[in-house]
Amino acid sequence: MGGLFGGVDIGATKLHAVIATADGKVLARARKKSKGKKGFDVVMQRVAAVLEKACSEANVAIGDLEAVGVGAPSPIRPDGTAVNATNLGWSDAALAASLMKCIPRPVVAENDCNLGTLGEFVYGVGQGSQSLVGLFVGTGLGGGIVLGGEMVRGPHHLAAEVGHMIIEAKGRKCGCGHIGCLEAYASKTGMGNRLRTEIEKNGRFSLLQEEEGLDLRNVRSGILARVYAAGDEVVREAVGEVAWYLGLGVANLITLLGPEVIVLGGGVLEALGEEMLESIRKSAKAATFPEVAFGDVKLVLSELGDDAVALGAIAYARSQLS
Amino acid sequence: MGGLFGGVDIGATKLHAVIATADGKVLARARKKSKGKKGFDVVMQRVAAVLEKACSEANVAIGDLEAVGVGAPSPIRPDGTAVNATNLGWSDAALAASLMKCIPRPVVAENDCNLGTLGEFVYGVGQGSQSLVGLFVGTGLGGGIVLGGEMVRGPHHLAAEVGHMIIEAKGRKCGCGHIGCLEAYASKTGMGNRLRTEIEKNGRFSLLQEEEGLDLRNVRSGILARVYAAGDEVVREAVGEVAWYLGLGVANLITLLGPEVIVLGGGVLEALGEEMLESIRKSAKAATFPEVAFGDVKLVLSELGDDAVALGAIAYARSQLS
Repeated sequence: MGGLFGGVDIGATKLHAVIATADGKVLARARKKSKGKKGFDVVMQRVAAVLEKACSEANVAIGDLEAVGVGAPSPIRPDGTAVNATNLGWSDAALAASLMKCIPRPVVAENDCNLGTLGEFVYGVGQGSQSLVGLFVGTGLGGGIVLGGEMVRGPHHLAAEVGHMIIEAKGRKCGCGHIGCLEAYASKTGMGNRLRTEIEKNGRFSLLQEEEGLDLRNVRSGILARVYAAGDEVVREAVGEVAWYLGLGVANLITLLGPEVIVLGGGVLEALGEEMLESIRKSAKAATFPEVAFGDVKLVLSELGDDAVALGAIAYARSQLS
Repeated sequence: MGGLFGGVDIGATKLHAVIATADGKVLARARKKSKGKKGFDVVMQRVAAVLEKACSEANVAIGDLEAVGVGAPSPIRPDGTAVNATNLGWSDAALAASLMKCIPRPVVAENDCNLGTLGEFVYGVGQGSQSLVGLFVGTGLGGGIVLGGEMVRGPHHLAAEVGHMIIEAKGRKCGCGHIGCLEAYASKTGMGNRLRTEIEKNGRFSLLQEEEGLDLRNVRSGILARVYAAGDEVVREAVGEVAWYLGLGVANLITLLGPEVIVLGGGVLEALGEEMLESIRKSAKAATFPEVAFGDVKLVLSELGDDAVALGAIAYARSQLS
């Protein structure tokens, strides 16, 4: 199929649309705010609008697209229903069906982290491989798994929740309510736990305290990178802890699945990836069983960055048409 | 293919051979000691001999078999080389090639836990499913993963080491040298750690102390079952701990992979499975993310028992011929 496709990454705060060819060449991009607080229907209209904006950038009409894919931060059922998008306030929202009412083309929907992983697999660092695991570190820790060329999703598309593998069985409570999930350590939320202990409980000084109105539980990645570069000890230790745990998660995925590629992305890695990669690698290598299996895996940073989810949505829409 | 196949489970102490039809009907079984201490060549001759014995039970000649599969406690390369069988003292042993010299039929070799999993998938509790994870609790904790009808083994067949997923990052040291592997808790070796602490350090009384020459690090499963049935508190707590951690491992496998079936086997589960299953289920359900995904999975005890590895070897030999 040689036509054009549209992909939209529906985030809690932003929408990011991409128009691309079937082989992933990006013709145009567009952004809008999600306005999630105004409710599901408003977000749906804005998804159609951001896609329209990207089409107009690319000098095509929505009707010219072969198909459209969207990704959202929720488990998504095979029929395109978003089970539970906490940050958008949706539950059992008929995402694909609703979009098909405002977009006159076939629309498919999938979990954003599954699509980010698929995007890297098809158009990014995974090209030429058969198996890839993606880990995206932001406020939470999302991810996806591709094995034998196929997304691993389980019977109701609820699997591949890499952030909720338990790694410290008697450790910290995770936002999901369970104890010791990887996300409770290897995410900005996890990092916030440590920052608050060091700064608020142990009274240590950090340059973060000079930032106005800062929420330690969700420090913007740009600020983290700046303060890290300035040599802030408290932040460096906290970033080191994230890298160490992330390495253990990487090790578990190699020990269990032995993928050809593991790709690390998301805001924290985009801001601090180069600084963190060596620590993640060291921690992962030491914890992989057998250690020699670590050498089989390409551990790399995301290549597609902000486009990963939208391009994954395009890859998914393509695969559903054929 | 309608012919007969031979399968041999090469254990550290025993060999177990099975002759079966292509659809897994067992015609005969035979056993011999492995005599691993006498070296690799002696074990190879004994594998040929136990197969001969099973053939003679079934009234067929080895030459009548379509092919032979063997399983051994080692990572095994795609060419049938055993990388490192600690309990047999082998490293880089040309298992399949050596057996082909004493057995006049095609021979394939694979890791025993991968084969036990494949056996359950093809001939046991996994029949009719497309995905299954096996966990075998003995001295250590082995396992295997089948997804989309295929064994997950990674590029050099080193993956699916479920016992070495890290579950307690700052916990106990595992026999493999890493910290916090599932095997350090959910195995007889792991249980031994707790038993020794309770009995030797904390001075608690257990009926195990009445067993002569008992090694707490590797109590025979039959003795465990007997002492458990007698209501021994120390043993009941230790078994409870194994069940709890095993449940966390099961949860992680569902959270990551969402298999249709998870099968629990091995000596400890054969002896105490009914007693442990409800605790494992409870622990797994509470730790699966999202919890609703737990309901998609069939969590069951092994159906094939001692035949699982040999029958898996037969399934593997069959698949390699076609």
